[in-house]
Amino acid sequence: MISVGLIGGSGYTGRKLIQYCNLHPEISNLKVYGNTTVSKTILEIFPELQNEVSDSEILPVDKLSFDHDVYFIAVPHGEALKYVPELIEKGKKVIDLGGDFRLTNNKVYERWYKINHTAPQLLSNNVYGLADLPTTDYTNAQLIANPGCYPTAALLSLVPFVKNYTDEIISVNVAAYSGTSGAGKTPKSHLLMSEMDGNVAAYNLGAHRHEPEIMQELAKNGFNSLFAFATHLLPIAVGIYSTSFIHTKNKIDKEKIEKAYKEFYANSNFIRLRTSPPQLNWVVNTNYCDIHLSVRDNQVIIISAIDNLIKGASGQAVQNLNKMFGWNEGLGVKQGEKYESVF
Amino acid sequence: MISVGLIGGSGYTGRKLIQYCNLHPEISNLKVYGNTTVSKTILEIFPELQNEVSDSEILPVDKLSFDHDVYFIAVPHGEALKYVPELIEKGKKVIDLGGDFRLTNNKVYERWYKINHTAPQLLSNNVYGLADLPTTDYTNAQLIANPGCYPTAALLSLVPFVKNYTDEIISVNVAAYSGTSGAGKTPKSHLLMSEMDGNVAAYNLGAHRHEPEIMQELAKNGFNSLFAFATHLLPIAVGIYSTSFIHTKNKIDKEKIEKAYKEFYANSNFIRLRTSPPQLNWVVNTNYCDIHLSVRDNQVIIISAIDNLIKGASGQAVQNLNKMFGWNEGLGVKQGEKYESVF
Amino acid sequence: MISVGLIGGSGYTGRKLIQYCNLHPEISNLKVYGNTTVSKTILEIFPELQNEVSDSEILPVDKLSFDHDVYFIAVPHGEALKYVPELIEKGKKVIDLGGDFRLTNNKVYERWYKINHTAPQLLSNNVYGLADLPTTDYTNAQLIANPGCYPTAALLSLVPFVKNYTDEIISVNVAAYSGTSGAGKTPKSHLLMSEMDGNVAAYNLGAHRHEPEIMQELAKNGFNSLFAFATHLLPIAVGIYSTSFIHTKNKIDKEKIEKAYKEFYANSNFIRLRTSPPQLNWVVNTNYCDIHLSVRDNQVIIISAIDNLIKGASGQAVQNLNKMFGWNEGLGVKQGEKYESVF
Amino acid sequence: MISVGLIGGSGYTGRKLIQYCNLHPEISNLKVYGNTTVSKTILEIFPELQNEVSDSEILPVDKLSFDHDVYFIAVPHGEALKYVPELIEKGKKVIDLGGDFRLTNNKVYERWYKINHTAPQLLSNNVYGLADLPTTDYTNAQLIANPGCYPTAALLSLVPFVKNYTDEIISVNVAAYSGTSGAGKTPKSHLLMSEMDGNVAAYNLGAHRHEPEIMQELAKNGFNSLFAFATHLLPIAVGIYSTSFIHTKNKIDKEKIEKAYKEFYANSNFIRLRTSPPQLNWVVNTNYCDIHLSVRDNQVIIISAIDNLIKGASGQAVQNLNKMFGWNEGLGVKQGEKYESVF
Repeated sequence: MISVGLIGGSGYTGRKLIQYCNLHPEISNLKVYGNTTVSKTILEIFPELQNEVSDSEILPVDKLSFDHDVYFIAVPHGEALKYVPELIEKGKKVIDLGGDFRLTNNKVYERWYKINHTAPQLLSNNVYGLADLPTTDYTNAQLIANPGCYPTAALLSLVPFVKNYTDEIISVNVAAYSGTSGAGKTPKSHLLMSEMDGNVAAYNLGAHRHEPEIMQELAKNGFNSLFAFATHLLPIAVGIYSTSFIHTKNKIDKEKIEKAYKEFYANSNFIRLRTSPPQLNWVVNTNYCDIHLSVRDNQVIIISAIDNLIKGASGQAVQNLNKMFGWNEGLGVKQGEKYESVF
Repeated sequence: MISVGLIGGSGYTGRKLIQYCNLHPEISNLKVYGNTTVSKTILEIFPELQNEVSDSEILPVDKLSFDHDVYFIAVPHGEALKYVPELIEKGKKVIDLGGDFRLTNNKVYERWYKINHTAPQLLSNNVYGLADLPTTDYTNAQLIANPGCYPTAALLSLVPFVKNYTDEIISVNVAAYSGTSGAGKTPKSHLLMSEMDGNVAAYNLGAHRHEPEIMQELAKNGFNSLFAFATHLLPIAVGIYSTSFIHTKNKIDKEKIEKAYKEFYANSNFIRLRTSPPQLNWVVNTNYCDIHLSVRDNQVIIISAIDNLIKGASGQAVQNLNKMFGWNEGLGVKQGEKYESVF
Repeated sequence: MISVGLIGGSGYTGRKLIQYCNLHPEISNLKVYGNTTVSKTILEIFPELQNEVSDSEILPVDKLSFDHDVYFIAVPHGEALKYVPELIEKGKKVIDLGGDFRLTNNKVYERWYKINHTAPQLLSNNVYGLADLPTTDYTNAQLIANPGCYPTAALLSLVPFVKNYTDEIISVNVAAYSGTSGAGKTPKSHLLMSEMDGNVAAYNLGAHRHEPEIMQELAKNGFNSLFAFATHLLPIAVGIYSTSFIHTKNKIDKEKIEKAYKEFYANSNFIRLRTSPPQLNWVVNTNYCDIHLSVRDNQVIIISAIDNLIKGASGQAVQNLNKMFGWNEGLGVKQGEKYESVF
Repeated sequence: MISVGLIGGSGYTGRKLIQYCNLHPEISNLKVYGNTTVSKTILEIFPELQNEVSDSEILPVDKLSFDHDVYFIAVPHGEALKYVPELIEKGKKVIDLGGDFRLTNNKVYERWYKINHTAPQLLSNNVYGLADLPTTDYTNAQLIANPGCYPTAALLSLVPFVKNYTDEIISVNVAAYSGTSGAGKTPKSHLLMSEMDGNVAAYNLGAHRHEPEIMQELAKNGFNSLFAFATHLLPIAVGIYSTSFIHTKNKIDKEKIEKAYKEFYANSNFIRLRTSPPQLNWVVNTNYCDIHLSVRDNQVIIISAIDNLIKGASGQAVQNLNKMFGWNEGLGVKQGEKYESVF
């Protein structure tokens, strides 16, 4: 049984972390730390959690206790740099849900985030926690950079292809659509229901911080072809739908690539390979990533769908916790199952 | 041809007024006045109007010109009190889309709006501009209080009944649902797509400022029975759906009351009496109010549906302008029709 | 451990029942019976359940096995009449999610449902399974009529008031709004996204089958005043929001009535009394019914919100199963909790 | 003044055509022809048009009059083949909103539509009516194939680029998202609000009939590089949002390409070139196509947004009518403007 400190618990990912920690059989204690929310309690911020979690006050993060075993950090990028170095130094395990430790090159970080990286020494030893990739290595993991929501959807669908066909690929283009909750709870005019009802809008074209993150991880798997990425807002709250177009030099064998995906993800419980394009509704409120491949001659279209707040944030974070400790990866994030199916 | 000054043109009702004035054949000149938006142009605020209106700068309201013939005022309540007295004194015509001149009793205003009314002398000579009521009198109208959105929907559906059955009524209860645009464009957390997607919420129960407005106008028509009013937010941007329950002492004759409505609204071009409950979609983007009566013994349920920004605000305001000047009431707000139908 | 037969498992309530049975620690076996779906498997109908339930074929209902201990019936009204009498005769426990056994008077049933009731002898011994009412009596229950979705929302909010103020009430009016899933999965034009996007529509005014059900249960608690009920479709899939207006002869003491609700529901784990109006989002995907009272002089407005497919159907059905067997009422429907809270 | 026959007026595009014809100053007569709807009137099918158009009966298409000057055909593909040859033979002008005359090669048609083309002789003389392209030639046009909705959005955004950089292009990939109204009004389970609320789904990957249409028109402009196309359903009724990724051999000069677009569309009133990505809301309920170019080195992302029922169907059809007759292209589809702007 471990004790968990959650820094930044008042947003959408914070709420999910609180719920998951509450359901997690190996977590005996959770404390939530904040700044502006210090005078409030969990249930004042999230009245929907009444009868689900007992109430508790938000504690001031400037009096952060170092008695916890693990720390989840769910604060805007740049903010985690204030807490992580000391926690690491004190030997604590840290899972950062923001972008501060995802890019291994601090110069790239500084170019895309427009922030000076004050702890570059931590960038080489951390784990990029794409939890469903069988190749992610948790050995001696102390600091886990929880992947961005778009990168999670894009990479889980692309990595097996890139691994198998590196030299074949001419171009990869990713059109990704997200619900508005990815933009957080801070009120902004363009995110109002009055503006987004029935609306769609591309944003940050050529300038989205998740682009270098995707490229870095694809490059680790050998990718060095043409790449483009476009992000869009959907007129809904939750979910990411990602469509990747791949052109190759030669025809792709449909059966062979499907077999490669199946083998790669054979032990990944939260990856569901689909024979028809997934519907976003299938994954919302779950920790699944659904993936579908469509092959025609030398063109491949890969669809993936996730819940941006779960698989793209808090669900994956708890999965990372479980993997870090060697527990069943579904603890906390998946409803308890009986040993025997009813069927 | 007249010249129009619009005070407060950056919100949802402002946009509609700009569009309507641009289409209006009797308006030759429009100037938009603002505060915080002064450095911007119309098309910077409303890029969707490109190719629809030519661009123009927002002028500072503290240098308001008195050269216009008519002034539309689309500012938060309390603000209109700053401009209206001087405009009236200078002999200008004024149509106020806010709540400052709707309640004829300044004490009632002060109780519900929590603001001191600084121009009570103007409350007796103004016109409550419920434009589709045949009984609204525009003779010598100089100051028109444009009705609230909920009162427009409720009153248009209730007034004919109250007029005909005053002594029969035991209770009237109005359940009204509105899209979020009624709350304006100022960003607030609870109005985000991320919060309102799939959501519904009652608000201001027993404390909504439109309640005394409805009661005042029903009372003018003889009503003095039990009344309650509840407002709710819908997970959409635009539209009001209003359901009124009436219990009476005796059975109501369906044919008789339907005939009374038909006669009352015989010359009201924007009232559409329906034989089945209207759908909100039928009236969105139009200046119509659709009304349906359902009668069973001594209980009547009346449904009305409007576009809150048009019939419930800017469309009615332009209709009021037209009535004030004795023009066809559809000028500006209804797409130009040919003299002969195509059928 | 019991064995469950589910008759009609291909609709929205069927899916939830399959999920709940799969999570239920006291259910060891589930078989799903159907007609038109017989050639299909559970995962063909509900691909979203992949990795959640193991797959299984739909069995032909005309070869229904009588080896199960309990039968859930989730078929259109009229259909349950074919199965229930034989099941009851064979001593089986039955929970019917449809309307065939809710009205205790077969003449009332026939008037509202336009169907001849072929098993009126079963109407007197069944239990109207409003599971959160502490007064619902499960002693020797064999046949449970699972309440309608609207009645669940309305009655849970009204019964304590009616019990306490029977003689005070002048009128009760219920304005209820529902997501479209209440109308089922059979495709109909007016339920298309293309029609319902941004739309609201009242329907079945004065003719909804849930009206006599609500009146019957209120009458059991002493109610005999004026009553009206109006149902509306929301532009969303899931949820019911119910607003009840009550006028009384005398002023209502707010503290007293709130205390009465608290005491009445002291042991009802799925009732959450709220100090502000609940948001529909708070209850969607849960088995909760959130209730709020607003009192002003002699008028009371009561809001309740539920998930129509869970609390208004399958969640309550499983809760009824649990109460029938004397188990913890949350088994299956509520995510497993740890004994100790994390806070 | 002309007389118009509309074959197939009961769907979403039919409704818009009725509205536009009613507002069109050069149309004096409209008759609507149908099959299954013959017993009904326009207002029974479209109650929302009350007070907008006078009522009229749907006439039987098997008694189609040849007295009209122009025929709009808004029927499912394959159906137009029954009517068009005879109309053309009789010298009538025809605008077909379906897919039967868009592909100039009947073999391609038969491969993608799985229908035998019975009038291949008409495929060479028709006009592919992409109305906003300055290069579309209406000289002696008798039969206009109104473009598909996706091709309209994709081609208007791509053609100027392809014209200018044919030899530079490595690959073009189009990710297009549409509201559900593109699928028509026939009820299907997967198009229900209950299914589509909050949902997104790719469909017809590698098999959408609009793909050969886009490729044909790009090829006419010199394109012969890699191409892929993916279509998705949005959880809304109306609108198409299209994102095109282009990789080129060399860096693209942003100013130069923007200038090329401006010049190409200098006289296209319904094309709005945008300096930021358009929002879908900006074009819904309008005949505009909004286009935005984002350039970074040798990658270009082009966004376009349209209303699928207007610019992608009926609005463009009326624009085609206007161009065919040499009238102002905005007649009927754009709200009447005054000669002088109000600003």
